[in-house]
Amino acid sequence: MKQQSLTETERVAGNGLLHRRMFLTAGAAAMGAGAAAERAGAAPLAVEPWMQIPGAPFNGYGQPSKYEEKVARTWASAPGTGGTGSSRTPHHLLNGTITPSGLHYERSHSGIPDINPDTHRLLIHGLVKQPLVFTLDDLGHYPMQSRIAFVECAGNSGALFAKEPAAANVQAIHGLLSCSEWTGVKLSVLLEEAGIDPAAKWILAEGADSSGMSRSIPLEKALDDAMVCLYQNGERVRPANGYPLRLLLPGYEGNMNVKWLRRIKLTAGPTMTKDETSKYTILLPSGKSLQFVFTLEAKSVITHPSPGLTVRGPGLYEISGLAWSGYGKVAKVEVSADGGKSWGEAALQEPVLSKALTRFRMAWHWDGGPVTLQSRCTDDSGYVQPDRAQLIALRGDRGNYHNNMIQSWSVAGSGEVKNVYA
Amino acid sequence: MKQQSLTETERVAGNGLLHRRMFLTAGAAAMGAGAAAERAGAAPLAVEPWMQIPGAPFNGYGQPSKYEEKVARTWASAPGTGGTGSSRTPHHLLNGTITPSGLHYERSHSGIPDINPDTHRLLIHGLVKQPLVFTLDDLGHYPMQSRIAFVECAGNSGALFAKEPAAANVQAIHGLLSCSEWTGVKLSVLLEEAGIDPAAKWILAEGADSSGMSRSIPLEKALDDAMVCLYQNGERVRPANGYPLRLLLPGYEGNMNVKWLRRIKLTAGPTMTKDETSKYTILLPSGKSLQFVFTLEAKSVITHPSPGLTVRGPGLYEISGLAWSGYGKVAKVEVSADGGKSWGEAALQEPVLSKALTRFRMAWHWDGGPVTLQSRCTDDSGYVQPDRAQLIALRGDRGNYHNNMIQSWSVAGSGEVKNVYA
Repeated sequence: MKQQSLTETERVAGNGLLHRRMFLTAGAAAMGAGAAAERAGAAPLAVEPWMQIPGAPFNGYGQPSKYEEKVARTWASAPGTGGTGSSRTPHHLLNGTITPSGLHYERSHSGIPDINPDTHRLLIHGLVKQPLVFTLDDLGHYPMQSRIAFVECAGNSGALFAKEPAAANVQAIHGLLSCSEWTGVKLSVLLEEAGIDPAAKWILAEGADSSGMSRSIPLEKALDDAMVCLYQNGERVRPANGYPLRLLLPGYEGNMNVKWLRRIKLTAGPTMTKDETSKYTILLPSGKSLQFVFTLEAKSVITHPSPGLTVRGPGLYEISGLAWSGYGKVAKVEVSADGGKSWGEAALQEPVLSKALTRFRMAWHWDGGPVTLQSRCTDDSGYVQPDRAQLIALRGDRGNYHNNMIQSWSVAGSGEVKNVYA
Repeated sequence: MKQQSLTETERVAGNGLLHRRMFLTAGAAAMGAGAAAERAGAAPLAVEPWMQIPGAPFNGYGQPSKYEEKVARTWASAPGTGGTGSSRTPHHLLNGTITPSGLHYERSHSGIPDINPDTHRLLIHGLVKQPLVFTLDDLGHYPMQSRIAFVECAGNSGALFAKEPAAANVQAIHGLLSCSEWTGVKLSVLLEEAGIDPAAKWILAEGADSSGMSRSIPLEKALDDAMVCLYQNGERVRPANGYPLRLLLPGYEGNMNVKWLRRIKLTAGPTMTKDETSKYTILLPSGKSLQFVFTLEAKSVITHPSPGLTVRGPGLYEISGLAWSGYGKVAKVEVSADGGKSWGEAALQEPVLSKALTRFRMAWHWDGGPVTLQSRCTDDSGYVQPDRAQLIALRGDRGNYHNNMIQSWSVAGSGEVKNVYA
């Protein structure tokens, strides 16, 4: 490690957090000093076996390297079922903001249906002038739009309500979160074609899985930025994410982005389906529950380092993670290395998009002592992500949903990283 | 079709091109009139078989629906080889701007090497103060950045130089083009750590495939926006795209974005490798060749409709396609439905990013007669994509590279779409 590099940097908060201009100037080169590249001698690199034989042929649809098999979703399903539960994205092994479609988290209430797109239909009915039925081919001829948006399960990060911090990593705690480029038809276009009865104030959206998953959504949201998506990251939506059609409600909790969409009914009030009465309500300290809490609050999590990614000794590092808000754009992410006593502002990767994951990065000089890392997101509404005590004071700890509290990771002198409450 | 909707629209160019505000307002709903949704009767939708049984279980890494098997790369390889040639992205079957990694185009000079990341090394040497060797683990500790960028083969669209228009679709003609979110370390950070000798003006970048693919790159580009990429669309770079490391030179022709990167040598001048002398030079009408033509010029292509996607009868449609420039951002895309006599401006999908694919969309009322569709890109340098006659006047038709001429698609009365010269 080149000690001189530290004199070129600017400390902005305790325990070695450095100014974000480290990433914007040649100053970033100084960080290399901590990354332990080896000085090369005069000998050339080894000529590896793969340089001596022709490589593999072309194929129609590519896959990751066999050396990356550990980069996979983990999952849990209800007893006696294979597909009722959820699978989680391994954010500690990813970087950037797009989630590969094969690693997008899943929440399924009765497995992934094997839908034939030729016979699948979307019905729009209820309080409309004229009910309409759409084939996939019909929908493919409508004007489309694309947007990058996150989808997050309402139950993501619920593990942080536990009395004691679980020995769990970012995938286990925060893996019910993913981000894709979605392309489809604005729902408003389809509703306006059917003709909206002035009495309609809500819609019911129903999936074609065998659980009949369905949710009520305010008509105002349906007419705002809701989309009926045919494409995910350029190709047709994956089966686990709703093939051949899924509803996208940017910023709303995941289950409302109904997968395998088959029916939209315009209604005067909410339908009170099983999925919004027995599930997805928020239990308060008073014993009452909040129902119809749709928008996901501003949140962030450090993915590097995080449990399983051991810090390998004193030196310069990049702390990076993900931030997002269902209300709009991420305005600011602050990072603390002293458990919240002092904060420094992280660099945000452009473009910062509304209701999409934003990657933040912070330069950090670790001196090798124990520290506690945290990140805190502020969105463009001015809302600030709460810490654990603040969220529990507001909502208690008996709920499971909409947990957006600040995540704390401890780094021990050994470099090991753990989930802690701080 | 609801004829009234036409009176609400604004024609901006011949043969039915409509103003782009169609996509920005409720006016888009009027387009639905042409998309032939069926009026639904009182009967409910059929209860399909997949609604009656539990669906498929979770899995670690998902795949597309079995019904989408036709969405695949096509490829051609040199006689006697399986992996020397190229494979092409099916843009007529995709939408949005991100290319799924499994469908990213490939150009390989000796197949896809099976690289073990644990033994792979990156050497930086030549005119440096201290040669350095990096492991993958080393590189993973450097500060990173992410950007969405296209990669295009220098030979993409070369088929349009043929004397007669080939009976080919957008995949066959323009499929050597893809776009990903790339994440990695700025090359400048690594070069500055090695220490750049003032005599260095170029670098040589070499791949670890058995062709020893290598190219010379001006040091200025290496210090500008070049990246050593570890991640593609969130996960590790795919084997076909350079696992475990690829060079990204945003806007430069594809082959220079060296895959399976193992060595960078700083040099006083270009190295004159086989890959930049016997290949990737541009033959001029004079018989001389242009060498070291790096940046890909502004270009666009309509993907919907295009050959294989038959227009299904008179009515309202969305024309959409892709535009890009190696020099910066797309400033404007114009569309013509009368073979270039009149042009209307298309809507650009936000965010428009520098050196990335940009999706454009245009509303079109087809009256059922034969028309010729074209698109024309202008980038933020003011450069305008040339038509076929202009490009051939400048460069002749004996070259194969950097063909950015305007693509013409004819639409017959039957709705069939063909590649034509117009």
